[in-house]
Amino acid sequence: MKTARFLDPAGSIRTGEWNGNSVEFGNQRFDLEDVSLLPPTNPSKIICIGLNYANHAKETDSDIPERPLLFFKTPNTLAGHRDTITLPESKDRVDFEGELGVVIGEQCRNVSIEDAEKVIAGYTCVNDLSNRDDQRIEQNWVRGKSFDNSAPIGPVLATPEHLPDGATVETRLNGEVQQSSSIDDLIFDIPELIAEITELISLEAGDIIATGTPEGVGPISGGDVVEVEIEGIGTLKNDYRASKFSGDETHDFVPNQ
Amino acid sequence: MKTARFLDPAGSIRTGEWNGNSVEFGNQRFDLEDVSLLPPTNPSKIICIGLNYANHAKETDSDIPERPLLFFKTPNTLAGHRDTITLPESKDRVDFEGELGVVIGEQCRNVSIEDAEKVIAGYTCVNDLSNRDDQRIEQNWVRGKSFDNSAPIGPVLATPEHLPDGATVETRLNGEVQQSSSIDDLIFDIPELIAEITELISLEAGDIIATGTPEGVGPISGGDVVEVEIEGIGTLKNDYRASKFSGDETHDFVPNQ
Repeated sequence: MKTARFLDPAGSIRTGEWNGNSVEFGNQRFDLEDVSLLPPTNPSKIICIGLNYANHAKETDSDIPERPLLFFKTPNTLAGHRDTITLPESKDRVDFEGELGVVIGEQCRNVSIEDAEKVIAGYTCVNDLSNRDDQRIEQNWVRGKSFDNSAPIGPVLATPEHLPDGATVETRLNGEVQQSSSIDDLIFDIPELIAEITELISLEAGDIIATGTPEGVGPISGGDVVEVEIEGIGTLKNDYRASKFSGDETHDFVPNQ
Repeated sequence: MKTARFLDPAGSIRTGEWNGNSVEFGNQRFDLEDVSLLPPTNPSKIICIGLNYANHAKETDSDIPERPLLFFKTPNTLAGHRDTITLPESKDRVDFEGELGVVIGEQCRNVSIEDAEKVIAGYTCVNDLSNRDDQRIEQNWVRGKSFDNSAPIGPVLATPEHLPDGATVETRLNGEVQQSSSIDDLIFDIPELIAEITELISLEAGDIIATGTPEGVGPISGGDVVEVEIEGIGTLKNDYRASKFSGDETHDFVPNQ
């Protein structure tokens, strides 16, 4: 099953079954054009993995970590499918990073590699937006990774059977493929990540592990459209605008369409 | 006014007025011995400041930062006054760090230094527990700073008038003073911190800024009691136990007394 969270026409937050063109909740069917989509879960935290594809470590001149490189995105970073994201002001470079997101299904701690699958509710698409100006000079990547709306996720939470073996993570900038790799290339696989994180940190239902990005990251400018597609799961699409723009620019401000 | 959050005898979460020996909610007065205290707010994130007292930077052989050093504690780190905190397993050194916590009163972004006071709901005591084994080898201080229950806060949220000019932050280990400094010694003061953080990151009502710790940090062992007292605000007290302990140890397991 695939589910989406949305604001129905009365403004109530609903979680409904997704069929690609509409969502259903309580025997009511809503056309996607009539609702505002929300992130498919409401995580208390997003735990991100840095440098978890060897080819991405290479493109950033980084060593492959000996254990998972962890960092956080806090709830202020959330954004949904189709949302327009304002790039942070006065930053020279904000990059897209398409990633597979693992959605946790229950509160858990000290989960073994063997038991890790039991705590997975499903998968979603994540764009781990990265403000390189700050990231490269920070001890902790707070300004660099947790600026507002730097974690668009969605459109759906898809239960585990939707994810094929070796699924492709593909990111497109204005329709052109920039990233395309198999999750088989993850350095630390999903059970290893869950075991490592929960050794010290409890996960909550709805929390997301962003598993890392493959090679091909690149900058976003105002007016760009970025899509993150996970094979079998779905396609997360957002457009971007500069933080300040002239009145001459035409930009569609209808929220979340 | 000082308020505390607590579980009343029926298990409902209440926010009541604190008078030191009891809390009042809805014309009912509860003796502190009859309730389980909770963290005084339920933050979506805690934003911590590293090396914000010159004497602490010196004791850690660190340079004074040119701008605030930010890191996060996520909601899994929360613990309340009087809670027993289990130290993480297999770590050689977990330190106490007593700090003044600023509680945010409303959702805000791009707050100027001049307007910063308007978004402050009040103050609380924070113990920024730090797992040095991991902190010293991590790019981002995730294992080092966000292990479960590494942010005891409380006992109260005190409105701003309770905080005297130059208030003392004092930390005691088993009754002996370890840290004692004035908040006048903060390198970046509270309005500067709020302005800096909200340039990129929205704060929510209940979020906490932990303003940094003065010199005198030190390790905690199982059986220790640590108190963080902020002049005019209150005293946060917690006891600690090792993650594994023999049946011979006597330890009071009555929760939150």
